[in-house]
Amino acid sequence: MPAKQKTLEDLFLIGLKDLYHAEKSLVRALRKMAKSAESDQLRSAFETHRAETEGQVERLEQIFEMLGKRPQAKTCEAMQGILAEGEEVMEDFADSEALDAGLLGAAQAVEHYEITRYGTMRSWASQLGMKDAVRLLEETLAEEKKTDQLLTELAESALNRRAAA
Amino acid sequence: MPAKQKTLEDLFLIGLKDLYHAEKSLVRALRKMAKSAESDQLRSAFETHRAETEGQVERLEQIFEMLGKRPQAKTCEAMQGILAEGEEVMEDFADSEALDAGLLGAAQAVEHYEITRYGTMRSWASQLGMKDAVRLLEETLAEEKKTDQLLTELAESALNRRAAA
Repeated sequence: MPAKQKTLEDLFLIGLKDLYHAEKSLVRALRKMAKSAESDQLRSAFETHRAETEGQVERLEQIFEMLGKRPQAKTCEAMQGILAEGEEVMEDFADSEALDAGLLGAAQAVEHYEITRYGTMRSWASQLGMKDAVRLLEETLAEEKKTDQLLTELAESALNRRAAA
Repeated sequence: MPAKQKTLEDLFLIGLKDLYHAEKSLVRALRKMAKSAESDQLRSAFETHRAETEGQVERLEQIFEMLGKRPQAKTCEAMQGILAEGEEVMEDFADSEALDAGLLGAAQAVEHYEITRYGTMRSWASQLGMKDAVRLLEETLAEEKKTDQLLTELAESALNRRAAA
């Protein structure tokens, strides 16, 4: 049986399953990262973003519903890879002065990955005429950008503290 | 024997090995992506960036040399994951009208990952007082940003063509 010609909607659905897996993995990872962080500011940033990420999972579930599909996760290899590198930092730098720098680097990689994926998904949703999905994806995108900005500020303030020391 | 306290320089070296693996994998992947792309513009973007990526590998080798280390790759799980997703698109959407959209999405994920990593590495190199490394990392960072910009333009022009069709 020849496969049906695949469309942009298929690509969108794969992306949705991928992000659903990615965000659910991230909720668990952020709990560990918050426990692991040395600085109170970084721990609090991770905790805030974990709560936000739970809301982002729900938005994805709403988009599945718009498509008339049951929410389904598909292993997001990229997020697994980024989080595996974060795990490695947590293990290898557990008692190191560079632990928070490593955690910040891992968290920024997560945010940038999500920003690019949500940006792509928003563009596809717009091409598919899915206005409500565009709105939900934009809400999450704004949160991811805000988190990335906060992480950048934390990284810069660490840099300044070091320069002043 | 207790492990020596790990430092930011250790973190930087791990990041360097990680990027070295990532860029070398990307050279191979871009060759396949260029062959796979439907549109001439996208193929040419991939070919140009492959040549650039070879230069970026050489810059990383120069930084290893500055550290008095032999260039060594450490599997970059994140890049492997992103490229695995790109491979999947090339297979599953080989004859689909959505192939280029999927390839563009994968390539943008690659660029964003690299932009965040090079940004972090530049910040660490600066904290470590490695001025020449900062310069090399900034050269690559500028190329990655230019490539991301070009990919965004290609994605937008595809969107406009579709809207006009």
